[in-house]
Amino acid sequence: MKKADIILTNGTIITMNADFEIIQDGILVIDDSKIVAIGKREELEGQYEAAETIDCSGQYIMPGLINAHTHVPMTLLRAMADDLRLDVWLMGYIMPVEREFVSPEFVKLGTTLACAEMIKGGVTAFADMYYFESDIAEATAAAGLRALLCESILKFPTPDAATYEESLDYTREFIEKWKGHHLIKATIAPHAPYSNTEETLRKSADLAREYDLPLMIHIAETEREVEDSMEMYGKTVVPWVKDQGVLEVPIIAAHCVHIDEHEMRMLKKANGSVAHCPSANLKLASGIASITEMLDIGLNVAIGTDGPASNNDLDMFEEMRLAALLAKVTPKNPTALPAKQALQMATINGAKALGMEDTTGSLETGKLADVIVVDAQPIHNMPRFDFNPDAAYSQMVYAAKSTDVQHTIVHGKFLMKDRQLQTIDEVALREEASSYAERVGKFLGKIEENPLHKLVAVAIDVERAESFEIQMKARLADPNIIEDLLSHDDVEVMRAVHYRQYDTYFIFDEPEQHRIRYREDDRIDANGNVESVRMRLTYTTAEKEQILKDAAVLSHSRFIAPASHPLRFYEEYFQAKEYRKLQKDRRRWRVLYKGTLFFVNIDKLIQPESDTMYVEIKARTWSQTDAENKAIFIREMMDILGIEVSETLNFEYLEMATN
Amino acid sequence: MKKADIILTNGTIITMNADFEIIQDGILVIDDSKIVAIGKREELEGQYEAAETIDCSGQYIMPGLINAHTHVPMTLLRAMADDLRLDVWLMGYIMPVEREFVSPEFVKLGTTLACAEMIKGGVTAFADMYYFESDIAEATAAAGLRALLCESILKFPTPDAATYEESLDYTREFIEKWKGHHLIKATIAPHAPYSNTEETLRKSADLAREYDLPLMIHIAETEREVEDSMEMYGKTVVPWVKDQGVLEVPIIAAHCVHIDEHEMRMLKKANGSVAHCPSANLKLASGIASITEMLDIGLNVAIGTDGPASNNDLDMFEEMRLAALLAKVTPKNPTALPAKQALQMATINGAKALGMEDTTGSLETGKLADVIVVDAQPIHNMPRFDFNPDAAYSQMVYAAKSTDVQHTIVHGKFLMKDRQLQTIDEVALREEASSYAERVGKFLGKIEENPLHKLVAVAIDVERAESFEIQMKARLADPNIIEDLLSHDDVEVMRAVHYRQYDTYFIFDEPEQHRIRYREDDRIDANGNVESVRMRLTYTTAEKEQILKDAAVLSHSRFIAPASHPLRFYEEYFQAKEYRKLQKDRRRWRVLYKGTLFFVNIDKLIQPESDTMYVEIKARTWSQTDAENKAIFIREMMDILGIEVSETLNFEYLEMATN
Repeated sequence: MKKADIILTNGTIITMNADFEIIQDGILVIDDSKIVAIGKREELEGQYEAAETIDCSGQYIMPGLINAHTHVPMTLLRAMADDLRLDVWLMGYIMPVEREFVSPEFVKLGTTLACAEMIKGGVTAFADMYYFESDIAEATAAAGLRALLCESILKFPTPDAATYEESLDYTREFIEKWKGHHLIKATIAPHAPYSNTEETLRKSADLAREYDLPLMIHIAETEREVEDSMEMYGKTVVPWVKDQGVLEVPIIAAHCVHIDEHEMRMLKKANGSVAHCPSANLKLASGIASITEMLDIGLNVAIGTDGPASNNDLDMFEEMRLAALLAKVTPKNPTALPAKQALQMATINGAKALGMEDTTGSLETGKLADVIVVDAQPIHNMPRFDFNPDAAYSQMVYAAKSTDVQHTIVHGKFLMKDRQLQTIDEVALREEASSYAERVGKFLGKIEENPLHKLVAVAIDVERAESFEIQMKARLADPNIIEDLLSHDDVEVMRAVHYRQYDTYFIFDEPEQHRIRYREDDRIDANGNVESVRMRLTYTTAEKEQILKDAAVLSHSRFIAPASHPLRFYEEYFQAKEYRKLQKDRRRWRVLYKGTLFFVNIDKLIQPESDTMYVEIKARTWSQTDAENKAIFIREMMDILGIEVSETLNFEYLEMATN
Repeated sequence: MKKADIILTNGTIITMNADFEIIQDGILVIDDSKIVAIGKREELEGQYEAAETIDCSGQYIMPGLINAHTHVPMTLLRAMADDLRLDVWLMGYIMPVEREFVSPEFVKLGTTLACAEMIKGGVTAFADMYYFESDIAEATAAAGLRALLCESILKFPTPDAATYEESLDYTREFIEKWKGHHLIKATIAPHAPYSNTEETLRKSADLAREYDLPLMIHIAETEREVEDSMEMYGKTVVPWVKDQGVLEVPIIAAHCVHIDEHEMRMLKKANGSVAHCPSANLKLASGIASITEMLDIGLNVAIGTDGPASNNDLDMFEEMRLAALLAKVTPKNPTALPAKQALQMATINGAKALGMEDTTGSLETGKLADVIVVDAQPIHNMPRFDFNPDAAYSQMVYAAKSTDVQHTIVHGKFLMKDRQLQTIDEVALREEASSYAERVGKFLGKIEENPLHKLVAVAIDVERAESFEIQMKARLADPNIIEDLLSHDDVEVMRAVHYRQYDTYFIFDEPEQHRIRYREDDRIDANGNVESVRMRLTYTTAEKEQILKDAAVLSHSRFIAPASHPLRFYEEYFQAKEYRKLQKDRRRWRVLYKGTLFFVNIDKLIQPESDTMYVEIKARTWSQTDAENKAIFIREMMDILGIEVSETLNFEYLEMATN
């Protein structure tokens, strides 16, 4: 008799192999990390002797489920804020809490909680996108789950990096550190096209290609994302990311609610996969993805739960069921996406998306032993019709619950046995998670006073602006010398406008130093008449200032939104501690200096009245390196105007505003 | 200290009362069948002394969920056949199995299985529509659940009645028998507008009104139902059922996927309720009901699981979650149907639909003690954010599982304690259900040979025809005497046509005596040319014949479908044991005799050739009483033709058909 570690016997084996074989009364033999034999009990019985033999009578033995898209640490934010618009939810709750709390400690705890939930729910592998992924890797490896972990790249600061350059460096180290690990595959995730620049997408793809890794990205989750892409680039989302090199590696495109057939074919050709997240797509009202169309053209579609803050759990049984149900409604066809295909999406298709189809995703001799055992006849899933081979898939997809999972085995090791976790201390985990929630609760209790939260609750289209503002300011004795700059060989004037600006600053309590500016921009024509009027709100937090080449470089959170209500409304709504007003005349030129975009303003205060005129040269960027280069250019332009370093001023107009 | 039976203490009480009160650290006191006190622990502690005190720390105490539409015995058909078109599923699988198996014994076992599942999933009351409802009532009362049980009325024969007259008589007895029972409320359910006649709807409503009871009916589940209603009556479904008196009592209108705002207002005005069944509506690809529109105008919307054969379970937590998720997608609004409102639908709105809002559906002093206790912090629903009062609803709707329910109490009695059923023997139940499934499996294994099943699998629009055919036939020596009938004072000729009919009979194995007739009807114009051609399939089973006033009254299952494939296809597809052919010339008159519709045929066989001519007078009906009346009229018409009783013949053309 051959020696082995584990024998699972007397169960019905749902293999999910290429022939969709189902073995009634089967045996599965595990040695070390692998499946060494699988077949009918009558054929295999007596050939192997194992340290542990598990009777699986009345149970299904099947491949573990694969969660193809999630953000595991967000378990700690579950049910914190629901039933809100995406911007209110994200900017009013999730982002403030993430800014405050996300740390290596936070992600480790959240990951352990997520792993506990997934192991109990029969998930054996997952693909994650978040911050501090190296810490997530540690917690995942400790729990014993298999994972593709993707470090997020965004153009704006994240909880683990002040700039995207830092994120890229972090990711390279992360990939190097986990290379060759038996459970963890480390890679990169440019968060989404709209949260990245052409450059960050290109650099992310380059890094993935360099290490021969897949890449994860959110694609076309909302209709607006597609509209914006069409407006800005004249292209839908997939062709645009292709232009940035993103399809040069196999990608996991999460959501894909709004892609057309051409885009599906592009993804298929590039060996990409879609991670379908039906619960989150409904919960955030994003829409229903055209899954049957994707499957029909042969595109690989897997299933993901998305993060537990927008689902609100990591239950792949629920997600499979919803995928199968939802796919039928748009084509009005109850035969669309049958149970068998839904289970395929949640197992072998998931493995393919993670680039692991050779080693997991189905039960076959030689594959890694990622196996679950599920009760085939609990009260809510009785009776069992063996005459119909598809009934096994129906049972698993339409009525099985994640709590029916009895054992979870990954890499040949029990992570759960008889519903008892083997690698995680559930009692300690509960306590830690509860105490974290209490802290978050206290913080959020206070946030009601946070003006950004209140801003996003009432404004439409709140946009995050570039993190860095570079500016240099000086008194201007003679306004005519501006012509020296505008007519300079290195300068190209793109546009000149004349405004009268009426600003109201809303000033809130210390120490956070939230500021909201309500600005009415009256555009003045050549005859001095008001041509058009625009109202905007700008939210900023305390600025972190640094001086680079004598230019002030301000890095801060800055959000802009059109002001659709009257000023009175905002005064009443925000209940600021203090209001200050300022009125000025501004001539503004949009110029290219040596091919780079800058704004040149000549300002004269009207209220409080003053005869002094100021010149201001400004630029904005997401990048610290870019900020340094722009500071040098601004200094050069000041030189052209004959303004010395000693003449530059360092103040904000807010300081001159009056009550 | 006051005496009581049960104290639930230390839990968070989600009352679902009119103020949506949530009591942190609360106590709920039960005496006999009722809630006698509810409030903060610090206020109530020490006032009551109970036989049993349950510590509910870390748990929610809430009203039990109410399943507003289901067919409980269909648990026994779960996962038997899925991912099929409605007609294939219903006529190919469900109806044949129901015809074979549904009996008092079947419904009792299925009901007990359903009650076990619902008790374990936190359901304390349900509304059912099926057959043998008095037996369902017995099993439900034994399990201890509260229910509104609605006996089905259909125009065709059902498993518990050969005619609707029998069903109506049964229902009256059923209502009388259960009057005043503390758990069971018995009433009537005309199954759907399309499966009833104007008369059966009217009589059902009359019965409900007589006993002051609500009534259940399927309304506008599919788009086709509305199209058919428009075509037949020039009205959508709700106004048409109103014409039949159905809205004169409070109704539970199940599904309502395709009703417009006018119909919603009609239902509201009539004090009706909608039972929303999101899983079944997706699974059968019926569509997404406009729930937020209904709620916005103030129509009462409850939630139902529908039968477990089309869901495939009785999990109200899943159904609530899906209701909340799905409502957001059509209006593209993530704030639509928030968790709080979804829980309201599954509790107090359900109670209102069942006509029980004064006694159950919320936790209030004086109401019946229908209470569940749910784990508020299992691993998949951690952490818990108490700072946000809506987080409790979010937890219960978006991430709670039915398996989180710890205790279920109905009418002050534990039906489940610490997840152990108190009124049902789970082991015995499992065995009985399994053995039933085995028998059904064997039967279905054979049904592959059932031609009706095969017919519905390929035909579009299979329709069930009237159950009774009344006919009288005789040789006709002189075809001209037909004028004596057609010109008679009591006869009005509606339409005269001339056909040549080419029939092929497909004859299957005994003993079921399935027959399929493929008929080509060539319509002949005045010049003897073929004007139009129509092909149809007619399926019948063995006929039960009775002689009434010398007319043969045949009662049998008869289904008609347009034949869209060529005859060759059906020959190959059905693989019948034997084929027989017949060709005849038929003149046919559609006449009213004393205002009642009949068909008069004069037939002459062409193949096999014969000079004999036959006269045939026919009528069809759903009703045994009506059949008797029509037989009398046919005899009278034969008298007008001068045909004696002794001259009438008793054969079918099939008998003359040749191989």
